[in-house]
Amino acid sequence: MAELQRYKAVISYDGSAFSGFQIQPNGRTIQAELEKALAKMHKSEIVKIVGSGRTDAGVHAKGQVIHFDSPLQISVEQWKKGLNALLSDDLVIMDIEKISSDFHARFDASHKTYKYRVYTQKTRDPFRHHFATHYPFSLDLDQVKLAANHLVGTYDFTSFCSAKAEVLNKVRTVSEIKVENKGDEVIFTITGNGFLHNMVRIIVGTLLEVGSGKRKASDMLGILQGRDRQLAGKTAPPQGLYLWQVEYNG
Amino acid sequence: MAELQRYKAVISYDGSAFSGFQIQPNGRTIQAELEKALAKMHKSEIVKIVGSGRTDAGVHAKGQVIHFDSPLQISVEQWKKGLNALLSDDLVIMDIEKISSDFHARFDASHKTYKYRVYTQKTRDPFRHHFATHYPFSLDLDQVKLAANHLVGTYDFTSFCSAKAEVLNKVRTVSEIKVENKGDEVIFTITGNGFLHNMVRIIVGTLLEVGSGKRKASDMLGILQGRDRQLAGKTAPPQGLYLWQVEYNG
Repeated sequence: MAELQRYKAVISYDGSAFSGFQIQPNGRTIQAELEKALAKMHKSEIVKIVGSGRTDAGVHAKGQVIHFDSPLQISVEQWKKGLNALLSDDLVIMDIEKISSDFHARFDASHKTYKYRVYTQKTRDPFRHHFATHYPFSLDLDQVKLAANHLVGTYDFTSFCSAKAEVLNKVRTVSEIKVENKGDEVIFTITGNGFLHNMVRIIVGTLLEVGSGKRKASDMLGILQGRDRQLAGKTAPPQGLYLWQVEYNG
Repeated sequence: MAELQRYKAVISYDGSAFSGFQIQPNGRTIQAELEKALAKMHKSEIVKIVGSGRTDAGVHAKGQVIHFDSPLQISVEQWKKGLNALLSDDLVIMDIEKISSDFHARFDASHKTYKYRVYTQKTRDPFRHHFATHYPFSLDLDQVKLAANHLVGTYDFTSFCSAKAEVLNKVRTVSEIKVENKGDEVIFTITGNGFLHNMVRIIVGTLLEVGSGKRKASDMLGILQGRDRQLAGKTAPPQGLYLWQVEYNG
Protein backbone atom coordinates (compact mmCIF):
# COMPACT_ATOMS: atom_id res chain seq x y z
CA MET A 1 0.00 0.00 0.00
CA ALA A 2 1.34 3.39 -0.99
CA GLU A 3 1.96 6.05 1.58
CA LEU A 4 -0.96 8.33 2.42
CA GLN A 5 -0.89 11.94 1.29
CA ARG A 6 -3.11 14.50 3.01
CA TYR A 7 -5.10 16.92 0.82
CA LYS A 8 -6.78 20.19 1.71
CA ALA A 9 -9.70 21.19 -0.53
CA VAL A 10 -11.85 24.31 -0.72
CA ILE A 11 -15.38 23.38 -1.65
CA SER A 12 -18.44 25.39 -2.59
CA TYR A 13 -22.05 24.29 -2.44
CA ASP A 14 -25.61 25.42 -2.91
CA GLY A 15 -27.08 24.01 0.30
CA SER A 16 -30.72 24.12 -0.89
CA ALA A 17 -31.03 20.44 -1.70
CA PHE A 18 -28.82 19.14 1.11
CA SER A 19 -29.80 18.05 4.61
CA GLY A 20 -26.66 19.77 5.85
CA PHE A 21 -22.96 18.92 5.90
CA GLN A 22 -22.70 15.98 8.26
CA ILE A 23 -23.43 12.42 7.21
CA GLN A 24 -26.71 11.03 8.57
CA PRO A 25 -28.78 7.88 8.09
CA ASN A 26 -31.36 9.57 5.86
CA GLY A 27 -31.02 12.63 3.71
CA ARG A 28 -28.47 13.81 1.20
CA THR A 29 -25.47 15.48 2.85
CA ILE A 30 -22.27 17.17 1.67
CA GLN A 31 -20.06 14.73 3.55
CA ALA A 32 -21.87 11.69 2.14
CA GLU A 33 -21.68 13.00 -1.45
CA LEU A 34 -17.98 13.74 -1.11
CA GLU A 35 -17.22 10.36 0.45
CA LYS A 36 -19.26 8.63 -2.27
CA ALA A 37 -17.20 10.37 -4.94
CA LEU A 38 -13.94 9.55 -3.13
CA ALA A 39 -14.97 5.89 -2.80
CA LYS A 40 -15.48 5.76 -6.58
CA MET A 41 -11.92 6.97 -7.04
CA HIS A 42 -10.57 4.39 -4.55
CA LYS A 43 -12.13 1.16 -5.86
CA SER A 44 -14.98 1.47 -3.35
CA GLU A 45 -12.68 1.84 -0.36
CA ILE A 46 -13.95 4.26 2.25
CA VAL A 47 -12.09 7.56 2.45
CA LYS A 48 -13.37 9.78 5.27
CA ILE A 49 -13.32 13.54 5.00
CA VAL A 50 -13.07 16.10 7.81
CA GLY A 51 -14.70 19.51 7.38
CA SER A 52 -13.84 22.79 9.12
CA GLY A 53 -17.27 22.49 10.74
CA ARG A 54 -20.85 21.59 9.91
CA THR A 55 -23.38 23.64 8.06
CA ASP A 56 -27.12 23.12 8.56
CA ALA A 57 -29.71 22.15 5.96
CA GLY A 58 -30.22 24.95 3.44
CA VAL A 59 -27.02 26.78 4.42
CA HIS A 60 -24.55 27.44 1.61
CA ALA A 61 -20.78 27.51 1.42
CA LYS A 62 -18.58 29.55 -0.82
CA GLY A 63 -15.35 28.41 0.81
CA GLN A 64 -15.81 25.43 3.13
CA VAL A 65 -12.55 23.58 3.78
CA ILE A 66 -12.08 19.82 4.12
CA HIS A 67 -9.16 17.44 4.39
CA PHE A 68 -8.73 13.77 3.53
CA ASP A 69 -5.93 11.25 3.05
CA SER A 70 -5.31 9.15 -0.03
CA PRO A 71 -2.68 6.76 -1.42
CA LEU A 72 -3.54 7.73 -5.02
CA GLN A 73 -0.64 9.26 -6.86
CA ILE A 74 -2.36 11.77 -9.10
CA SER A 75 -1.87 15.50 -9.59
CA VAL A 76 -4.04 18.09 -7.88
CA GLU A 77 -5.48 19.00 -11.31
CA GLN A 78 -6.53 15.38 -11.75
CA TRP A 79 -8.06 15.35 -8.29
CA LYS A 80 -10.10 18.44 -9.03
CA LYS A 81 -11.24 17.23 -12.43
CA GLY A 82 -11.94 13.70 -11.27
CA LEU A 83 -13.94 14.65 -8.20
CA ASN A 84 -15.89 17.39 -9.98
CA ALA A 85 -16.89 14.94 -12.70
CA LEU A 86 -18.32 12.64 -10.01
CA LEU A 87 -20.06 15.32 -7.92
CA SER A 88 -23.48 16.72 -8.70
CA ASP A 89 -24.10 20.25 -10.00
CA ASP A 90 -24.67 21.83 -6.59
CA LEU A 91 -21.33 20.81 -5.05
CA VAL A 92 -17.92 21.64 -6.46
CA ILE A 93 -14.23 21.39 -5.58
CA MET A 94 -12.90 24.91 -6.12
CA ASP A 95 -9.33 24.21 -5.19
CA ILE A 96 -7.24 21.32 -3.90
CA GLU A 97 -3.67 21.12 -2.65
CA LYS A 98 -1.27 18.69 -1.00
CA ILE A 99 -0.73 19.51 2.63
CA SER A 100 1.29 18.26 5.58
CA SER A 101 -0.21 15.25 7.37
CA ASP A 102 -0.56 17.22 10.60
CA PHE A 103 -2.97 19.71 9.02
CA HIS A 104 -6.50 19.41 10.40
CA ALA A 105 -9.42 21.21 8.72
CA ARG A 106 -11.34 21.69 11.97
CA PHE A 107 -8.75 22.01 14.74
CA ASP A 108 -6.40 24.28 12.82
CA ALA A 109 -9.01 26.78 11.63
CA SER A 110 -8.11 30.14 13.16
CA HIS A 111 -10.91 32.30 11.73
CA LYS A 112 -14.16 31.80 9.92
CA THR A 113 -16.13 34.31 7.94
CA TYR A 114 -19.85 34.00 7.24
CA LYS A 115 -22.00 36.17 5.04
CA TYR A 116 -25.74 36.63 5.36
CA ARG A 117 -27.87 38.10 2.55
CA VAL A 118 -31.14 39.93 3.22
CA TYR A 119 -33.33 41.79 0.73
CA THR A 120 -36.00 44.18 1.80
CA GLN A 121 -38.06 45.00 -1.29
CA LYS A 122 -41.79 44.57 -0.78
CA THR A 123 -42.39 41.88 -3.40
CA ARG A 124 -40.48 38.65 -2.86
CA ASP A 125 -38.06 37.55 -5.56
CA PRO A 126 -38.59 34.00 -6.86
CA PHE A 127 -34.95 33.83 -7.96
CA ARG A 128 -33.62 34.42 -4.47
CA HIS A 129 -35.90 32.14 -2.46
CA HIS A 130 -33.02 29.75 -1.76
CA PHE A 131 -30.25 32.35 -1.67
CA ALA A 132 -31.28 35.33 0.45
CA THR A 133 -33.81 36.11 3.15
CA HIS A 134 -36.80 38.27 2.34
CA TYR A 135 -37.36 40.80 5.13
CA PRO A 136 -39.77 43.36 3.68
CA PHE A 137 -39.29 46.10 6.24
CA SER A 138 -37.31 49.30 6.14
CA LEU A 139 -34.11 48.92 8.11
CA ASP A 140 -32.26 51.58 10.02
CA LEU A 141 -28.73 50.47 9.16
CA ASP A 142 -27.10 52.97 11.50
CA GLN A 143 -28.87 51.31 14.41
CA VAL A 144 -27.97 47.87 13.07
CA LYS A 145 -24.30 48.88 12.93
CA LEU A 146 -24.41 50.29 16.46
CA ALA A 147 -25.94 47.06 17.73
CA ALA A 148 -23.42 44.98 15.79
CA ASN A 149 -20.53 46.86 17.40
CA HIS A 150 -21.72 45.72 20.83
CA LEU A 151 -21.16 42.12 19.73
CA VAL A 152 -17.60 42.56 18.51
CA GLY A 153 -15.18 41.26 21.11
CA THR A 154 -14.69 38.25 23.35
CA TYR A 155 -17.92 37.32 25.13
CA ASP A 156 -19.95 34.43 26.41
CA PHE A 157 -22.38 34.06 23.49
CA THR A 158 -24.84 31.73 25.29
CA SER A 159 -27.73 34.07 24.39
CA PHE A 160 -26.79 33.74 20.71
CA CYS A 161 -26.50 29.97 20.71
CA SER A 162 -29.14 27.36 19.95
CA ALA A 163 -30.45 26.14 23.33
CA LYS A 164 -29.87 22.57 22.11
CA ALA A 165 -26.10 23.05 21.77
CA GLU A 166 -24.07 20.72 23.96
CA VAL A 167 -20.78 22.60 23.98
CA LEU A 168 -19.76 23.80 27.46
CA ASN A 169 -17.54 26.76 26.78
CA LYS A 170 -19.58 29.39 24.97
CA VAL A 171 -16.98 32.13 24.98
CA ARG A 172 -16.06 33.17 21.45
CA THR A 173 -14.31 36.11 19.84
CA VAL A 174 -16.12 37.98 17.09
CA SER A 175 -13.49 40.09 15.40
CA GLU A 176 -15.65 41.95 12.89
CA ILE A 177 -19.27 42.47 11.86
CA LYS A 178 -19.68 44.43 8.64
CA VAL A 179 -23.12 45.60 7.55
CA GLU A 180 -23.38 46.97 4.04
CA ASN A 181 -25.88 47.84 1.35
CA LYS A 182 -25.21 46.14 -1.96
CA GLY A 183 -27.80 46.75 -4.64
CA ASP A 184 -31.13 46.06 -2.98
CA GLU A 185 -29.55 43.78 -0.37
CA VAL A 186 -28.11 44.17 3.09
CA ILE A 187 -25.08 41.95 3.52
CA PHE A 188 -23.81 40.95 6.96
CA THR A 189 -20.20 39.75 7.07
CA ILE A 190 -19.20 38.20 10.39
CA THR A 191 -15.71 37.00 11.24
CA GLY A 192 -14.64 35.22 14.39
CA ASN A 193 -12.42 32.55 15.84
CA GLY A 194 -15.30 30.11 16.08
CA PHE A 195 -19.06 30.05 16.14
CA LEU A 196 -21.66 28.29 18.27
CA HIS A 197 -24.59 26.45 16.73
CA ASN A 198 -26.91 28.95 14.99
CA MET A 199 -24.82 31.85 16.33
CA VAL A 200 -24.63 33.79 13.06
CA ARG A 201 -28.32 33.26 12.35
CA ILE A 202 -29.34 34.41 15.84
CA ILE A 203 -27.05 37.45 15.62
CA VAL A 204 -28.54 38.40 12.25
CA GLY A 205 -32.10 37.73 13.45
CA THR A 206 -31.51 39.98 16.46
CA LEU A 207 -29.85 42.72 14.38
CA LEU A 208 -32.80 42.70 11.96
CA GLU A 209 -35.12 43.31 14.91
CA VAL A 210 -32.98 46.30 15.85
CA GLY A 211 -33.06 47.55 12.26
CA SER A 212 -36.84 47.39 12.06
CA GLY A 213 -37.26 49.16 15.40
CA LYS A 214 -38.42 46.23 17.54
CA ARG A 215 -35.31 46.47 19.75
CA LYS A 216 -32.75 49.10 20.63
CA ALA A 217 -29.07 48.83 19.74
CA SER A 218 -28.17 49.26 23.40
CA ASP A 219 -30.18 46.13 24.29
CA MET A 220 -27.29 44.01 23.04
CA LEU A 221 -25.31 44.41 26.24
CA GLY A 222 -28.11 43.09 28.43
CA ILE A 223 -28.74 40.22 26.00
CA LEU A 224 -25.09 39.17 26.18
CA GLN A 225 -24.94 39.49 29.95
CA GLY A 226 -28.16 37.56 30.51
CA ARG A 227 -26.75 34.35 28.96
CA ASP A 228 -30.19 33.18 27.97
CA ARG A 229 -31.27 32.27 24.42
CA GLN A 230 -34.74 33.65 25.18
CA LEU A 231 -33.34 37.17 25.38
CA ALA A 232 -32.07 37.35 21.80
CA GLY A 233 -34.14 37.60 18.61
CA LYS A 234 -35.44 34.98 16.22
CA THR A 235 -33.04 32.68 14.41
CA ALA A 236 -32.80 34.03 10.84
CA PRO A 237 -33.63 31.36 8.23
CA PRO A 238 -30.85 29.19 6.74
CA GLN A 239 -31.12 30.19 3.09
CA GLY A 240 -29.46 33.60 3.58
CA LEU A 241 -26.34 32.12 5.21
CA TYR A 242 -23.01 31.37 3.50
CA LEU A 243 -19.87 29.93 5.07
CA TRP A 244 -17.64 32.28 3.14
CA GLN A 245 -14.05 31.60 4.13
CA VAL A 246 -12.03 29.54 6.59
CA GLU A 247 -8.58 30.78 7.53
CA TYR A 248 -5.63 28.86 8.93
CA ASN A 249 -2.49 30.03 10.66
CA GLY A 250 0.73 29.84 8.75
CA MET B 1 -73.36 36.81 -10.13
CA ALA B 2 -71.29 39.96 -10.46
CA GLU B 3 -69.95 41.02 -13.80
CA LEU B 4 -66.57 39.61 -14.82
CA GLN B 5 -63.55 41.85 -14.88
CA ARG B 6 -60.49 40.86 -16.92
CA TYR B 7 -57.05 41.18 -15.27
CA LYS B 8 -53.61 41.24 -16.84
CA ALA B 9 -50.78 40.10 -14.58
CA VAL B 10 -47.01 40.04 -15.00
CA ILE B 11 -45.57 37.02 -13.27
CA SER B 12 -42.05 35.89 -12.51
CA TYR B 13 -40.86 32.38 -11.73
CA ASP B 14 -37.84 30.25 -11.05
CA GLY B 15 -38.65 27.37 -13.40
CA SER B 16 -36.26 24.88 -11.74
CA ALA B 17 -38.89 22.98 -9.80
CA PHE B 18 -41.67 23.23 -12.40
CA SER B 19 -42.54 20.80 -15.18
CA GLY B 20 -43.17 23.82 -17.38
CA PHE B 21 -45.98 26.34 -17.77
CA GLN B 22 -48.87 24.33 -19.12
CA ILE B 23 -51.14 22.23 -16.92
CA GLN B 24 -50.61 18.48 -17.25
CA PRO B 25 -51.86 15.34 -15.52
CA ASN B 26 -48.67 14.81 -13.51
CA GLY B 27 -46.06 17.33 -12.49
CA ARG B 28 -46.16 20.74 -10.91
CA THR B 29 -46.81 23.50 -13.44
CA ILE B 30 -47.11 27.30 -13.37
CA GLN B 31 -50.64 27.23 -14.75
CA ALA B 32 -51.80 24.65 -12.20
CA GLU B 33 -50.28 26.58 -9.27
CA LEU B 34 -51.88 29.83 -10.41
CA GLU B 35 -55.28 28.22 -10.96
CA LYS B 36 -55.07 26.52 -7.57
CA ALA B 37 -54.41 29.90 -5.91
CA LEU B 38 -57.23 31.52 -7.88
CA ALA B 39 -59.63 28.71 -6.91
CA LYS B 40 -58.84 29.40 -3.25
CA MET B 41 -59.83 33.03 -3.76
CA HIS B 42 -63.07 32.02 -5.53
CA LYS B 43 -64.56 29.51 -3.05
CA SER B 44 -63.09 26.62 -5.04
CA GLU B 45 -64.62 27.74 -8.33
CA ILE B 46 -62.36 27.15 -11.32
CA VAL B 47 -60.78 30.29 -12.81
CA LYS B 48 -58.75 29.54 -15.94
CA ILE B 49 -55.71 31.58 -16.85
CA VAL B 50 -54.25 32.23 -20.29
CA GLY B 51 -50.51 32.84 -20.67
CA SER B 52 -48.66 34.64 -23.45
CA GLY B 53 -47.20 31.24 -24.31
CA ARG B 54 -45.72 28.18 -22.68
CA THR B 55 -42.31 27.76 -21.16
CA ASP B 56 -40.66 24.35 -20.87
CA ALA B 57 -39.53 22.56 -17.71
CA GLY B 58 -36.60 24.37 -16.12
CA VAL B 59 -37.11 27.58 -18.12
CA HIS B 60 -37.56 30.76 -16.07
CA ALA B 61 -39.65 33.88 -16.53
CA LYS B 62 -38.91 37.39 -15.41
CA GLY B 63 -41.95 38.89 -17.13
CA GLN B 64 -44.43 36.25 -18.30
CA VAL B 65 -47.92 37.73 -18.90
CA ILE B 66 -51.24 36.06 -18.14
CA HIS B 67 -54.90 37.10 -18.13
CA PHE B 68 -57.92 35.82 -16.27
CA ASP B 69 -61.49 36.91 -15.50
CA SER B 70 -63.02 37.28 -12.06
CA PRO B 71 -66.21 38.57 -10.46
CA LEU B 72 -64.36 39.50 -7.25
CA GLN B 73 -64.52 43.19 -6.47
CA ILE B 74 -61.16 43.77 -4.86
CA SER B 75 -58.39 46.23 -5.60
CA VAL B 76 -55.32 45.30 -7.67
CA GLU B 77 -53.23 45.68 -4.48
CA GLN B 78 -55.45 43.11 -2.78
CA TRP B 79 -55.13 40.80 -5.80
CA LYS B 80 -51.38 40.98 -5.70
CA LYS B 81 -51.14 40.48 -1.96
CA GLY B 82 -53.77 37.75 -1.85
CA LEU B 83 -52.33 35.69 -4.69
CA ASN B 84 -48.73 36.09 -3.54
CA ALA B 85 -49.68 34.86 -0.09
CA LEU B 86 -51.13 31.70 -1.68
CA LEU B 87 -48.33 31.05 -4.16
CA SER B 88 -45.11 29.25 -3.31
CA ASP B 89 -41.72 30.97 -3.06
CA ASP B 90 -40.68 30.28 -6.65
CA LEU B 91 -43.66 31.97 -8.33
CA VAL B 92 -44.72 35.57 -7.81
CA ILE B 93 -47.19 38.12 -9.16
CA MET B 94 -45.04 41.17 -9.94
CA ASP B 95 -47.82 43.38 -11.20
CA ILE B 96 -51.53 43.17 -11.86
CA GLU B 97 -53.96 45.55 -13.55
CA LYS B 98 -57.56 45.73 -14.74
CA ILE B 99 -57.81 45.47 -18.50
CA SER B 100 -60.44 45.53 -21.20
CA SER B 101 -62.27 42.24 -21.71
CA ASP B 102 -61.02 41.99 -25.29
CA PHE B 103 -57.37 41.80 -24.18
CA HIS B 104 -55.79 38.39 -24.82
CA ALA B 105 -52.41 37.51 -23.31
CA ARG B 106 -51.43 35.22 -26.19
CA PHE B 107 -53.13 36.62 -29.31
CA ASP B 108 -52.34 40.26 -28.58
CA ALA B 109 -48.65 39.81 -27.80
CA SER B 110 -46.71 41.78 -30.41
CA HIS B 111 -43.14 41.09 -29.27
CA LYS B 112 -41.38 38.78 -26.89
CA THR B 113 -37.91 39.09 -25.48
CA TYR B 114 -35.91 36.17 -24.13
CA LYS B 115 -32.57 36.23 -22.37
CA TYR B 116 -30.12 33.37 -22.22
CA ARG B 117 -27.25 33.27 -19.70
CA VAL B 118 -24.00 31.39 -20.35
CA TYR B 119 -20.86 31.36 -18.22
CA THR B 120 -17.58 30.11 -19.53
CA GLN B 121 -15.23 29.83 -16.55
CA LYS B 122 -13.54 26.46 -16.28
CA THR B 123 -14.92 25.40 -12.90
CA ARG B 124 -18.69 25.10 -12.72
CA ASP B 125 -20.52 27.32 -10.26
CA PRO B 126 -22.86 25.46 -7.87
CA PHE B 127 -24.92 28.62 -7.38
CA ARG B 128 -25.77 28.93 -11.05
CA HIS B 129 -26.59 25.32 -11.86
CA HIS B 130 -30.27 26.18 -12.27
CA PHE B 131 -29.80 29.70 -13.59
CA ALA B 132 -27.17 29.76 -16.31
CA THR B 133 -25.53 27.31 -18.69
CA HIS B 134 -21.95 26.26 -18.09
CA TYR B 135 -20.05 26.26 -21.40
CA PRO B 136 -16.37 26.08 -20.42
CA PHE B 137 -14.85 27.10 -23.75
CA SER B 138 -13.41 30.37 -24.92
CA LEU B 139 -15.88 32.13 -27.18
CA ASP B 140 -15.12 34.42 -30.09
CA LEU B 141 -17.91 36.92 -29.51
CA ASP B 142 -17.22 38.80 -32.74
CA GLN B 143 -18.00 35.63 -34.69
CA VAL B 144 -21.06 34.99 -32.52
CA LYS B 145 -22.34 38.49 -33.28
CA LEU B 146 -21.71 38.05 -37.01
CA ALA B 147 -23.63 34.77 -36.97
CA ALA B 148 -26.44 36.32 -34.93
CA ASN B 149 -26.85 39.11 -37.47
CA HIS B 150 -27.65 36.52 -40.16
CA LEU B 151 -30.66 35.44 -38.12
CA VAL B 152 -32.16 38.91 -37.68
CA GLY B 153 -35.03 39.38 -40.12
CA THR B 154 -38.10 37.54 -41.37
CA TYR B 155 -37.27 33.94 -42.22
CA ASP B 156 -38.62 30.44 -42.22
CA PHE B 157 -37.04 29.18 -38.97
CA THR B 158 -37.78 25.46 -39.56
CA SER B 159 -34.11 24.64 -38.95
CA PHE B 160 -34.30 26.34 -35.55
CA CYS B 161 -37.49 24.64 -34.42
CA SER B 162 -37.97 21.41 -32.49
CA ALA B 163 -38.73 18.70 -35.06
CA LYS B 164 -41.72 17.72 -32.91
CA ALA B 165 -43.46 21.10 -33.34
CA GLU B 166 -46.85 20.87 -35.03
CA VAL B 167 -47.24 24.46 -36.17
CA LEU B 168 -47.43 24.82 -39.97
CA ASN B 169 -46.21 28.34 -40.60
CA LYS B 170 -42.64 28.58 -39.39
CA VAL B 171 -41.95 32.08 -40.65
CA ARG B 172 -41.07 34.43 -37.81
CA THR B 173 -39.45 37.83 -37.50
CA VAL B 174 -36.46 38.18 -35.20
CA SER B 175 -36.00 41.90 -34.67
CA GLU B 176 -32.86 41.87 -32.53
CA ILE B 177 -30.19 39.57 -31.14
CA LYS B 178 -27.86 41.23 -28.65
CA VAL B 179 -24.76 39.40 -27.44
CA GLU B 180 -22.97 40.98 -24.50
CA ASN B 181 -20.40 40.25 -21.86
CA LYS B 182 -21.63 40.91 -18.34
CA GLY B 183 -19.21 39.99 -15.58
CA ASP B 184 -18.11 36.46 -16.39
CA GLU B 185 -21.26 35.74 -18.40
CA VAL B 186 -22.32 36.04 -22.00
CA ILE B 187 -25.93 37.19 -22.22
CA PHE B 188 -28.01 36.65 -25.36
CA THR B 189 -31.07 38.88 -25.67
CA ILE B 190 -33.42 37.88 -28.47
CA THR B 191 -36.53 39.80 -29.46
CA GLY B 192 -39.08 38.77 -32.06
CA ASN B 193 -42.75 38.74 -32.96
CA GLY B 194 -43.08 35.11 -31.97
CA PHE B 195 -40.98 32.05 -31.40
CA LEU B 196 -41.23 28.42 -32.43
CA HIS B 197 -40.76 25.59 -29.96
CA ASN B 198 -37.15 25.55 -28.70
CA MET B 199 -36.24 28.29 -31.18
CA VAL B 200 -34.28 30.44 -28.75
CA ARG B 201 -32.45 27.44 -27.31
CA ILE B 202 -31.51 26.12 -30.78
CA ILE B 203 -30.36 29.59 -31.89
CA VAL B 204 -28.19 29.91 -28.76
CA GLY B 205 -26.88 26.36 -29.11
CA THR B 206 -25.89 27.06 -32.70
CA LEU B 207 -24.31 30.43 -31.86
CA LEU B 208 -22.25 28.80 -29.11
CA GLU B 209 -20.90 26.34 -31.69
CA VAL B 210 -19.87 29.32 -33.82
CA GLY B 211 -18.25 31.00 -30.83
CA SER B 212 -16.18 27.96 -29.97
CA GLY B 213 -15.08 27.49 -33.58
CA LYS B 214 -17.10 24.39 -34.51
CA ARG B 215 -19.05 26.34 -37.15
CA LYS B 216 -18.57 29.48 -39.20
CA ALA B 217 -20.74 32.58 -38.89
CA SER B 218 -21.51 32.38 -42.60
CA ASP B 219 -23.01 28.89 -42.16
CA MET B 220 -26.18 30.51 -40.80
CA LEU B 221 -27.54 31.32 -44.26
CA GLY B 222 -27.33 27.71 -45.43
CA ILE B 223 -28.87 26.48 -42.18
CA LEU B 224 -31.84 28.82 -42.60
CA GLN B 225 -32.28 27.93 -46.26
CA GLY B 226 -32.06 24.19 -45.67
CA ARG B 227 -35.20 24.16 -43.48
CA ASP B 228 -33.99 21.11 -41.63
CA ARG B 229 -33.54 20.85 -37.86
CA GLN B 230 -30.54 18.54 -38.41
CA LEU B 231 -28.55 21.42 -39.91
CA ALA B 232 -28.55 23.62 -36.81
CA GLY B 233 -26.66 23.08 -33.56
CA LYS B 234 -27.62 21.43 -30.32
CA THR B 235 -30.55 22.72 -28.31
CA ALA B 236 -29.03 24.70 -25.42
CA PRO B 237 -30.26 23.47 -22.01
CA PRO B 238 -33.36 25.02 -20.41
CA GLN B 239 -31.81 26.45 -17.25
CA GLY B 240 -30.12 29.37 -19.03
CA LEU B 241 -33.36 30.62 -20.60
CA TYR B 242 -35.59 33.43 -19.31
CA LEU B 243 -38.81 34.72 -20.86
CA TRP B 244 -37.90 38.30 -20.11
CA GLN B 245 -40.67 40.53 -21.42
CA VAL B 246 -43.88 40.34 -23.43
CA GLU B 247 -45.01 43.45 -25.24
CA TYR B 248 -48.48 44.40 -26.45
CA ASN B 249 -49.62 47.00 -28.95
CA GLY B 250 -51.31 50.08 -27.59
